[in-house]
Amino acid sequence: MPVSAPGAVLRHEDWLVRRLLRHPVRIVPLGFLVAILLGTGLLMLPPATEEHRITPFLTALFTATSAVSVTGMVVVDTPDYWTPVGLVMITVLTQVGGLGILTGGTLVILLVARQLGLRNRLLVQAETAEFGIGDVRRLLLRIGLTMLVCEAVMTTVLALRFVLAYDYSPGRALWYGFFHAVQAFNNGGFSLYRDNLTGFAHDGWVTLPLAFGSIIGGLGFPALFEATRSWRRPGRWTIGTKLTVWGSLVLLAVAFAVLLAAEWSNPRTLGSLGWEGKALAAFTQDAFVRTGGFNTLDITGLDEASYPLLIALMFIGGGSASTAGGIKVATFFLLAFAIWAEVRGEPDVTVGRRRAATASQRQALTVALLSVALVVAGTVALILLTERLSYDRALFEVTSAFSTTGLSTGVAPTLPPAGQLILIALMYIGRVGTLTLGSAIALNTRRRLYRYPEEQPIVG
Amino acid sequence: MPVSAPGAVLRHEDWLVRRLLRHPVRIVPLGFLVAILLGTGLLMLPPATEEHRITPFLTALFTATSAVSVTGMVVVDTPDYWTPVGLVMITVLTQVGGLGILTGGTLVILLVARQLGLRNRLLVQAETAEFGIGDVRRLLLRIGLTMLVCEAVMTTVLALRFVLAYDYSPGRALWYGFFHAVQAFNNGGFSLYRDNLTGFAHDGWVTLPLAFGSIIGGLGFPALFEATRSWRRPGRWTIGTKLTVWGSLVLLAVAFAVLLAAEWSNPRTLGSLGWEGKALAAFTQDAFVRTGGFNTLDITGLDEASYPLLIALMFIGGGSASTAGGIKVATFFLLAFAIWAEVRGEPDVTVGRRRAATASQRQALTVALLSVALVVAGTVALILLTERLSYDRALFEVTSAFSTTGLSTGVAPTLPPAGQLILIALMYIGRVGTLTLGSAIALNTRRRLYRYPEEQPIVG
Ligand SMILES: [K+]
Ligand SMILES: [K+]
Repeated sequence: MPVSAPGAVLRHEDWLVRRLLRHPVRIVPLGFLVAILLGTGLLMLPPATEEHRITPFLTALFTATSAVSVTGMVVVDTPDYWTPVGLVMITVLTQVGGLGILTGGTLVILLVARQLGLRNRLLVQAETAEFGIGDVRRLLLRIGLTMLVCEAVMTTVLALRFVLAYDYSPGRALWYGFFHAVQAFNNGGFSLYRDNLTGFAHDGWVTLPLAFGSIIGGLGFPALFEATRSWRRPGRWTIGTKLTVWGSLVLLAVAFAVLLAAEWSNPRTLGSLGWEGKALAAFTQDAFVRTGGFNTLDITGLDEASYPLLIALMFIGGGSASTAGGIKVATFFLLAFAIWAEVRGEPDVTVGRRRAATASQRQALTVALLSVALVVAGTVALILLTERLSYDRALFEVTSAFSTTGLSTGVAPTLPPAGQLILIALMYIGRVGTLTLGSAIALNTRRRLYRYPEEQPIVG
Repeated sequence: MPVSAPGAVLRHEDWLVRRLLRHPVRIVPLGFLVAILLGTGLLMLPPATEEHRITPFLTALFTATSAVSVTGMVVVDTPDYWTPVGLVMITVLTQVGGLGILTGGTLVILLVARQLGLRNRLLVQAETAEFGIGDVRRLLLRIGLTMLVCEAVMTTVLALRFVLAYDYSPGRALWYGFFHAVQAFNNGGFSLYRDNLTGFAHDGWVTLPLAFGSIIGGLGFPALFEATRSWRRPGRWTIGTKLTVWGSLVLLAVAFAVLLAAEWSNPRTLGSLGWEGKALAAFTQDAFVRTGGFNTLDITGLDEASYPLLIALMFIGGGSASTAGGIKVATFFLLAFAIWAEVRGEPDVTVGRRRAATASQRQALTVALLSVALVVAGTVALILLTERLSYDRALFEVTSAFSTTGLSTGVAPTLPPAGQLILIALMYIGRVGTLTLGSAIALNTRRRLYRYPEEQPIVG
């Protein structure tokens, strides 16, 4: 694959592109670290808390990390502990984190593609692998605008519903609508309700807009832009977009069926609802589970069959360069295609008449296996730190933190400080890690100076 | 890679080779199935049981599968339930299973290597990728002889020890020595003691010969022959042998250290022993855990930190074409090398100045991920079938069955029939599955008739 020297085709005014090209991989993790530390400082200020005192450092750090990494896991009860000032801070941190990963992730993907001389459809002229600062500005504007429109639509629908059906005052309805709209699009997972969205499980006017916002934010802009631009010709999408869009639909459908089957007559979740209610609650929980972090079902009341499903879905996550976490839908399905090709004896991994590069397969393998190793290590560490935590609970919380989903069986507040620090580290690594690793791997390909003789060991 | 047409270079008398080449992949699973069914029939006969009645089909099937697949998991108490007649049957089934996988696995690897035109050091003239029936006969004889010598040495040492230190009668000492020697070399895991080998944890004269026999049988002959033949020049070993031998040593050392640290002051395992006793018991348990299935430590008394270690070790397993199960040491370390190369940006995966073929990497990936999927599916199925089984217990038993290790927290006898059938299926698939899959993949490579345009999706 031809790798053009950085800067070779840059225009003079491309200072941002130039800077990103120099250290494209460092900017995202550093930016998130700075945002988390700033957020921690802000959340520690007395006006942020109902008790008007300084929030302990660890609690503030956990909450700030949870907000900036758009996880939504909590160690204090969101509506009880924080004042409106604190809640606005959380909203801003979530918005900054979401926008940061959407733009940062999209830019990194764009730049990696450009540097590797790959076809990319994010920009019209990117087909020629050249772009300038103007293109990047247009792209960022477009991302910001999409975000604003989605959030405005959700806020409006929710606010109207809150006023008309729940007798909220207009101001309160607007605030509640806005808060949850921001959380939904950014897949933040914080809620102003103590029982999260379980109280609205039957009300599609509240949960459906949030579910669709969460799905759109969790698709990511590379896939979203390409899919919407050439929606008439899905056969011509790039592999990444195909895997992300079709894969997300497959996961949504499978999880919907399994959730319905497992929880149908469970009195603590779907049991008491009519069949439309069951379908609605299962669908919205399904939409939120791969990263949204809202819950319309009581997580602790779920059937045992649902836990492995949720853990697997959280681990897989959403689209690349989206507000979703996990190893990403495209990574998961690329590996599935690779295995399928292997079992069939096909030398190439083909996805809809395109061949996936060997380099991508190895990247997917690396991201997936290192993620497994991280989740296993985190689970074991959490078990060792806490006497009474069971393995399935620990695995659930660790996967939820790593995948920045934020669903919880309520374990986080009960953890010792070291355990909370583990979750903090997992949220941070889960947010910036896979993207950074993937792009670093893609950029860091060394030239072959010499090759050793080949052998083909037989494995298994 | 050149694939020579089957039979092209065969001599006329190579009927065995010819037959194996025609369906090399089917012979091993079919042979094991026949042996299991025969064993089930034999074990059902009244003389096999202390109560002199017909053993229920499921119990006999479970025990026969456990013996032939050299797992050693039990649903009835071995010394209490079976008469000497039954125990001889179990010994024969273990020996048949162990010899079957050693010879069948070695032949399959040899034939795959030959058909792919690969360098192979199992036979001297195999360097030229040609061999006849005489070579194969010599190879099989050598495997059988190594087995007999190892078992004879272990039997002798154990029998002497039993007579001298435990006052056994000579006949009893010989029988106990022989039974455990056969189990150790074949990594069968059945024991004549109700508490397995925990009663001998302090006695190296009993446990060390069994540990070394288990390690040798679990290395497999491809690695064992090459390593012993050219032990002066380990740099010239093939990749498979390097990964298997050095990888096994690394795993033994790491597990030894972790076990010692985790169990050092645990009163139910190492706590009551002196430091030599601790080291001995930890080493022997370490040697048995990747497939032997004996236990010198009380499995239910282990520290919580030891479970994930044991599960990981069982899953990795032993050498290719050995009596060990799991995904195999070479598979695991080949993936580790691939990830390491990826993170460093190396285009090639090199292992000691040799380059591992891309095909092998993809095979390793396929074997590992399908195994993960199988273990996860088995664990979930077991959880759904049993109300009170915890996830860590279920995962432990499923991994133990799949990896044909046979270590148990005592769950198997308490399972409903469907649960026992799941473990039976896992033992069978674990025994023949990875080898069959790996060789089928290696042989089934189709020719490329056309290639689609390449894309490099960015993952993570
Ligand atoms: K979330
Ligand atoms: K075993």
